[in-house]
Amino acid sequence: MAIGSNLVRELRPEDIVRLEEDGPRVVLLDQRRLPDEEVEFVCSSAAEVADAIRAMVVRGAPAIGVAAAYGLALAALRGDDLETAERLLAASRPTAVNLSWALAEMRSDPTAERARALHAEEVDRCRRMAAHAADLFGPGTRALTHCNAGGLATGGYGSAVGALRTAWERGLLAHVLVDETRPLLQGARLTAWELETAGIPHTVIADSAAGSMMARGEVDLVVTGADRIAANGDTANKIGTYGLAVLAAHHRIPLYVVAPTSTVDRATPTGAEIPIEERAAAEVTARFPARNPAFDVTPAALIAAIVTEDGVWTP
Amino acid sequence: MAIGSNLVRELRPEDIVRLEEDGPRVVLLDQRRLPDEEVEFVCSSAAEVADAIRAMVVRGAPAIGVAAAYGLALAALRGDDLETAERLLAASRPTAVNLSWALAEMRSDPTAERARALHAEEVDRCRRMAAHAADLFGPGTRALTHCNAGGLATGGYGSAVGALRTAWERGLLAHVLVDETRPLLQGARLTAWELETAGIPHTVIADSAAGSMMARGEVDLVVTGADRIAANGDTANKIGTYGLAVLAAHHRIPLYVVAPTSTVDRATPTGAEIPIEERAAAEVTARFPARNPAFDVTPAALIAAIVTEDGVWTP
Repeated sequence: MAIGSNLVRELRPEDIVRLEEDGPRVVLLDQRRLPDEEVEFVCSSAAEVADAIRAMVVRGAPAIGVAAAYGLALAALRGDDLETAERLLAASRPTAVNLSWALAEMRSDPTAERARALHAEEVDRCRRMAAHAADLFGPGTRALTHCNAGGLATGGYGSAVGALRTAWERGLLAHVLVDETRPLLQGARLTAWELETAGIPHTVIADSAAGSMMARGEVDLVVTGADRIAANGDTANKIGTYGLAVLAAHHRIPLYVVAPTSTVDRATPTGAEIPIEERAAAEVTARFPARNPAFDVTPAALIAAIVTEDGVWTP
Repeated sequence: MAIGSNLVRELRPEDIVRLEEDGPRVVLLDQRRLPDEEVEFVCSSAAEVADAIRAMVVRGAPAIGVAAAYGLALAALRGDDLETAERLLAASRPTAVNLSWALAEMRSDPTAERARALHAEEVDRCRRMAAHAADLFGPGTRALTHCNAGGLATGGYGSAVGALRTAWERGLLAHVLVDETRPLLQGARLTAWELETAGIPHTVIADSAAGSMMARGEVDLVVTGADRIAANGDTANKIGTYGLAVLAAHHRIPLYVVAPTSTVDRATPTGAEIPIEERAAAEVTARFPARNPAFDVTPAALIAAIVTEDGVWTP
């Protein structure tokens, strides 16, 4: 293991999001305060879970789905109106399709057991897609990743970061370049924290340095998660993924998208139909006019492979 | 003029950098504190000017050259050893070639008059290159710029921002997208402030959103400055310029480099020989390992034109 392996510890699914029937309440690791503090954020109602999703206490498409499932189970435990709860939760973030998928799964059985089973399935899916993705790593791979497609984003092992974890366990991963991922710095705050926790060598760079690192020959592959994948393979992910995909193609470096099949939205034919959330300009700058699209769409043609729990798909 | 034109005011060269013989001292507008505060930074020796350049109180290749020229004149006024002063100033930033050019120009005549003449010539050069560059703008141009190649960076009118100023005065410019330019946010702090001061409509975006804006068809051209241009046209500029150039080429959008001929280093055959300054990792993140290359090199093939005071050059 790496230098500093004494600090290595496992990030458990219940550390990230859980339902406590005694309360009842949904407890989230407050991702806004990482890496400086590990603080829990307690939600006493589905509305509070929806608020927490909107405020990005919990973020990442699969983790949002798990949190929403627990939120609906919480509403059921409290005897609240489930239609209202589902509507509030569904409206909390527009781009992640897992959110509506998880809520649909919960509709027929809005219990704590069902939500916990969904959560466990999500973690299991991550381990399976990570195993498939790690098959794409050669020895000594130097990977670049964007945003946080980690345990924090999925409620457990991670999708893109899960692939890095598995590749590391197999001895195939040399180093990870982490895009800091402005404006909310999920890379510099969350992915770096997860990689440090797992003992995986990593270096944070400004997002705009990725092209230069590729030109220097320091990147063997790019691996990201996805927020929504259209039927044709076009993939919505954190703003900047599209630019990375163009840069990777220019340098003949493969870009792999690792995401659960629940991220695939067969009702959306192409990326053009995926709604892109515009977040508050103040996240970029409070002093001048700003625009803050939270996601962009990468055409399938720029993606070397989409890896799900079921295997590796070439668009 | 634009809405808010009552706020419009001229940014004078002497507001950015000047020599006061009464003292004597070099006075710099402290660019680190913009846009929140307009504060002057006073240097009483060439060593203090070198420190100010290193600390980026003043930044931008031409402005660094002007500040160094005043620094050498300051040393002469004080009766300090000029060789020591020149060595200190030359070592303050490694990538900008204007710095050694300005010092070489001052060597035979290290007087306040000569430094002021160099400054005035720099401003005049900017106005001429801006006029040439604005000829490349069609009506209603929506431009994207990176970092700050403005009056602040050149000690006066600006190179890339000068082109925007002239295009705006000619009624050709509709809007400017401003890359925030991590890690030091020269775009979000300095370029946005200059454009606001000049009354030019602008919007700040995260650096990683530039590709998405191009894909949406919202960018007609990209315009940047340069820190050093090799003899073959390869151009070193703020980290992220290379990525923008790849993205612009992918979208068939021209990228124009606007810079004085003093930026061209004929002794450097190609971009591969340009030293790239690595700045402190803590500028990116103080919490995790980080890398912080301050510049990257854009191959001439990705540059539609290099515009100097002498005209428009197609690499």
